[in-house]
Amino acid sequence: MTGNPIITAVLLVLMSIPLTRSRAADALPSWNDGAAKQAIIQFVTDVTTAGGRKFVPAAERIATFDNDGTLWVEQPMYTQFVFALDRVKTLAPQHPEWKTNEPFASILKGDRKALMATGEKGLVELIMASHAGMTTAEFESLVRDWLAKAQHPRFKRPYTELAYQPMLELLAYLRANDFKTYIVSGGGVEFMRPWTENVYGVPPEQVIGSTVKTKFELRDDKPALMRLPEVDFIDDKAGKPVAINKFIGRRPIFAFGNSDGDLEMLQWTAAGDGARFEGLVHHTDAEREYAYDRNSSIGRLDKALDEARERGWVVVDMKRDWKRVFGESFGSQGEVLRPTGSVSDRPGSSWQGLTTNSVPGKN
Amino acid sequence: MTGNPIITAVLLVLMSIPLTRSRAADALPSWNDGAAKQAIIQFVTDVTTAGGRKFVPAAERIATFDNDGTLWVEQPMYTQFVFALDRVKTLAPQHPEWKTNEPFASILKGDRKALMATGEKGLVELIMASHAGMTTAEFESLVRDWLAKAQHPRFKRPYTELAYQPMLELLAYLRANDFKTYIVSGGGVEFMRPWTENVYGVPPEQVIGSTVKTKFELRDDKPALMRLPEVDFIDDKAGKPVAINKFIGRRPIFAFGNSDGDLEMLQWTAAGDGARFEGLVHHTDAEREYAYDRNSSIGRLDKALDEARERGWVVVDMKRDWKRVFGESFGSQGEVLRPTGSVSDRPGSSWQGLTTNSVPGKN
Repeated sequence: MTGNPIITAVLLVLMSIPLTRSRAADALPSWNDGAAKQAIIQFVTDVTTAGGRKFVPAAERIATFDNDGTLWVEQPMYTQFVFALDRVKTLAPQHPEWKTNEPFASILKGDRKALMATGEKGLVELIMASHAGMTTAEFESLVRDWLAKAQHPRFKRPYTELAYQPMLELLAYLRANDFKTYIVSGGGVEFMRPWTENVYGVPPEQVIGSTVKTKFELRDDKPALMRLPEVDFIDDKAGKPVAINKFIGRRPIFAFGNSDGDLEMLQWTAAGDGARFEGLVHHTDAEREYAYDRNSSIGRLDKALDEARERGWVVVDMKRDWKRVFGESFGSQGEVLRPTGSVSDRPGSSWQGLTTNSVPGKN
Repeated sequence: MTGNPIITAVLLVLMSIPLTRSRAADALPSWNDGAAKQAIIQFVTDVTTAGGRKFVPAAERIATFDNDGTLWVEQPMYTQFVFALDRVKTLAPQHPEWKTNEPFASILKGDRKALMATGEKGLVELIMASHAGMTTAEFESLVRDWLAKAQHPRFKRPYTELAYQPMLELLAYLRANDFKTYIVSGGGVEFMRPWTENVYGVPPEQVIGSTVKTKFELRDDKPALMRLPEVDFIDDKAGKPVAINKFIGRRPIFAFGNSDGDLEMLQWTAAGDGARFEGLVHHTDAEREYAYDRNSSIGRLDKALDEARERGWVVVDMKRDWKRVFGESFGSQGEVLRPTGSVSDRPGSSWQGLTTNSVPGKN
């Protein structure tokens, strides 16, 4: 601060004017004016206004976001699941036994029903076969290489282009207001870290996710971390507040999810003292993206939707609240879209569509 | 950047001058001039000099520090161990069975030898009895309250005043050069987070440590995280690179430890590409602090010392390299010190001195 008392006074006055609101009008251009956008701007203005009743010091401005269905598309299958299926196909020639062993036999035959019938046991075997038995560095290369080639079956785009533009703007707006933005996802942390910084502006150390166990080894005298075929932690549901506490050690003041898997994270966020923001993305837009909630096996939004309405959490209606869903590269939205119907009301649809190229039809 | 090409050119020239070296002379006032200090300054200058061969972008400047014996005193007992013993004494009236059950009986009798004889099983029971069965918020209060009262048996100071002044300066110097400083400790993460920001300037989200399992619960409709009597992860030895990968997702370029428990962290750091710094604090100063290495059961420095010498890692000789060990509040160093002898060459000394007030004598 300068030594001149008049200049000091002017600066103090200027500093106390909340600039956030006017800046925000430009910071969230893909959001339609409405309750959701207003609630976001109001909250950020409140916690950043020095001297205000709801002010929160910058160090405590922790914001946590779910990933699948909150920051990028999760339908018709979680991207990581598609990666796992593709990996099995790539590895199949080295595993002749997979022709008869489940869940691999069904994957290789493209038999969706039989694959689904292998249940959780099948899912775990699939993830372990596709995600373990290599070093962390090798796995990172596999993810990068796959993402560079894979395309979403409906949008015919790399998955990393299927981040929601309004959410990218929200992440940037929060960071511009000195929030630390975290991802807290059920997805594998090492599946996300190779691209979250480029796509979301979220660095690896702010990505929290599910993990397999790893083991430190010296290979030819060179240290390596081997990914073991053993689950370490599932970062979903009640695991999310556990992970937030373990990794961040502070309670978020702002959290965004889209499914029942995010309920406990939102409850944990809401239970803190002072100003709080809890948000849900509600997928209501079958034309531009997908429409699903209570009956979807991927991203089921049921209990959390009830609780959000009871407690006044912000529910973003994708169709109503978002001016556009994806970024500029999509051109006028709708152009690339050939809606294949809503995936809601399709229980058990999570393992549908076994290839990245097939567009799942209606059941 | 301004639009004026001459001013732009001048700014570019100014920006390319490595200011780090001259700033550092003041940034590390408690370090004696010598090889260790020079190596630190050289490294920081190298990785921050834009355009230089060893330049590292700010986002990748990750520095990891062990805690016990690297940033604060770990003799004659780990501080957290003293906390656990005190906690047992406080809880004893509610546990009449402890009068006969080990390891509690020996703790309550102050019988060091018998306590040591309970071995790892005893240690785990002690930690579980003293560290679990409460919410994370309750545990944080216990730690804060204890630290406010407890005193180190020799220095008669709160433990939080026993941070090494030269290391505090090093942490600040790194941060001033856009490093992100992390603690990676075998100690409990929730034992450290309540005070690391005040003492070290390291925020909770940059503290990695050992953990017990926690469970999300609704208590009277209010979410809480219960600390369970079950080990989740031991962040020591080969666990350190595992944790660094899990929590940070980037390899450090700078790491500091003081014992064999830090060897794998240093190996992992050293194995990355580009400029690297690995450092060890060698406790050589029985007068101002303690002198111990190969034969100490606390902070044993044996294999890592050999490897450091082989590979040219920086070994800080506390006696020679540090102008002062503790902060200003200690006055002229030595004043408060009544050396009770070196603890080196005392195998099995880790459980000695069962009360915070007793000064352990020579064996």
